[in-house]
Amino acid sequence: MAVTDIERGAMRRALAVALNGPRGVNPQVGAVILSPGGEILADGWHRGIGTAHAEVDALSKLAADAARGATAVVTLEPCNHTGHTGPCSEALIAAGIARVVYAVADPGEHSAGGAQRLRDAGIDVDARVLEEDAAQLLDSWLTVQRLGRPHVTVKWAQSLDGRAAAADGTSKWITGPAARADVHRRRSQTDAIVAGTGTVLADDPALTARDESGELFGHQPLPVVIGSRAVPDAAALRRHPHSFEQYANPAEALDALARRGVHRVFVEGGPTLASAFLREGLADEVLAYVAPVLLGGDRLAVDDIGVATISQARRLAVASIENLGDDLLVIAHPTGESEN
Amino acid sequence: MAVTDIERGAMRRALAVALNGPRGVNPQVGAVILSPGGEILADGWHRGIGTAHAEVDALSKLAADAARGATAVVTLEPCNHTGHTGPCSEALIAAGIARVVYAVADPGEHSAGGAQRLRDAGIDVDARVLEEDAAQLLDSWLTVQRLGRPHVTVKWAQSLDGRAAAADGTSKWITGPAARADVHRRRSQTDAIVAGTGTVLADDPALTARDESGELFGHQPLPVVIGSRAVPDAAALRRHPHSFEQYANPAEALDALARRGVHRVFVEGGPTLASAFLREGLADEVLAYVAPVLLGGDRLAVDDIGVATISQARRLAVASIENLGDDLLVIAHPTGESEN
Repeated sequence: MAVTDIERGAMRRALAVALNGPRGVNPQVGAVILSPGGEILADGWHRGIGTAHAEVDALSKLAADAARGATAVVTLEPCNHTGHTGPCSEALIAAGIARVVYAVADPGEHSAGGAQRLRDAGIDVDARVLEEDAAQLLDSWLTVQRLGRPHVTVKWAQSLDGRAAAADGTSKWITGPAARADVHRRRSQTDAIVAGTGTVLADDPALTARDESGELFGHQPLPVVIGSRAVPDAAALRRHPHSFEQYANPAEALDALARRGVHRVFVEGGPTLASAFLREGLADEVLAYVAPVLLGGDRLAVDDIGVATISQARRLAVASIENLGDDLLVIAHPTGESEN
Repeated sequence: MAVTDIERGAMRRALAVALNGPRGVNPQVGAVILSPGGEILADGWHRGIGTAHAEVDALSKLAADAARGATAVVTLEPCNHTGHTGPCSEALIAAGIARVVYAVADPGEHSAGGAQRLRDAGIDVDARVLEEDAAQLLDSWLTVQRLGRPHVTVKWAQSLDGRAAAADGTSKWITGPAARADVHRRRSQTDAIVAGTGTVLADDPALTARDESGELFGHQPLPVVIGSRAVPDAAALRRHPHSFEQYANPAEALDALARRGVHRVFVEGGPTLASAFLREGLADEVLAYVAPVLLGGDRLAVDDIGVATISQARRLAVASIENLGDDLLVIAHPTGESEN
């Protein structure tokens, strides 16, 4: 049957309650149970690893048989997998749910197939309702499921003409206080922050997330260094609340970080490292903080990214352009298409 | 006396009628004559070199004595100079005008002093009403008056990371059709278009202003080449409707162009030339067409502009940021301040 406006409204509510769950290794998922008449019977969300999935959380708020003939509206395809919890598809079938509407398909190797299992049990299933909104909520989790590595944001600050510093290497500060505060806020929402050894040796960054008064935010991302040179004993990095990890190259770092449950990585450690992630196709998102200045010279924010000729240009899908004080923040996603 | 809302409204009308005059060597100026009761008696505008100035044009539409006791609202300070026409200050005094309200002071060496002449004759004078709007209308004319050289716009197209081309030199097209059409439209509104010999030899540009079907616009800017290398006999430039002029360097070119009445120059002939104008402080406006692509490599849109350290960064006052298809157009003005 066709998706109704009531079901779309329920999906918006499911997306809203999903945010009650923690951002972390497990996805933020929400569910709403609708009566056959379209009334909301219950909602639920996923509270993190080892706890009930959203649809089971919602069902648990109802009396036995109260969901018979009802519709379950879920932001993520119900799983078909016994992990820390039993498969949600079975729970929905057992509760007598007649119809399931979901937003995003589960790309997991083990957990996918829930929709098919529901259809096999005679349940009516509709998918891709408000899919983009749900995918945005799940972006890092979906990246991990699909690519087996964390979601990578590559950040840099640049002059309008693409420089990271003046000819003598000075760069404090190209961008203004609003841009710097935005960087710190975003650091506080990521799992790991990555810098190259060149930047560690040159700039001695703390790799912490700090508020405008300089105090550390409650959540601090894991500091990660890429490169083979040693981190000096006196490096500010060694005073970070978490011990840093060091890897030889981007691919090795992402592999190791994924295995230890890191879902979101923020790369901001200098032009060489940013260019390596871009060149290797390991950037899911770029954040370019653009200051309204011209610098000229050879200190570039991005260096060789493997583009030899114009048909190989790395196209970006611009998601937003925001004013931060005098600066601009361009948020974009490499599209994978190189032709323009 | 204080400037009234009626006078401000009249100034908006004067700015609007100013646009009836031609853009060219002479300024676009408008005037409105208000009765003592605030009614509009006449308006007028400057029709170009050798013709009546705006306030005289407006007065000419009235019967003798009809302007006695009236207020003249003018976008530019009435001149005090006998050039092709007599001084406007004397014409206003002779007509019995009681009050003059103007927007922008006349910076001209010979023509300034009109306001003082009016005050000396007992006329009430107020200045700087909607000054910014009027200054915008007069920008190139004011540049010529103040600096003795044409108003210079430096234009380039770049990737987000500041490149003008890929590593092998290919660049067609970094930016999309909307950006290219915008460039041609702006070329058609300028007096001269300037390219370096390097660009002429490498790209063989036509330096014409064309509409989207490739047809030439009615007005074609004068083509100008800067550099000492010879323009090849077969250069497209030699088929331009106007014969090109060639100069050794930016300062020499601007000097010669100012003397032949060129008020607006559009510099778009490659990174070396753009950087020379920026380095020498000869850019009044920059137009950066930014494509949402990354290129890396060493083909930069802007090269050495004489910034050695971050405190010398060339600050830009961003006037506007506009979407043109997938591209951005950043219009900005070098502020002259280098500190941030």
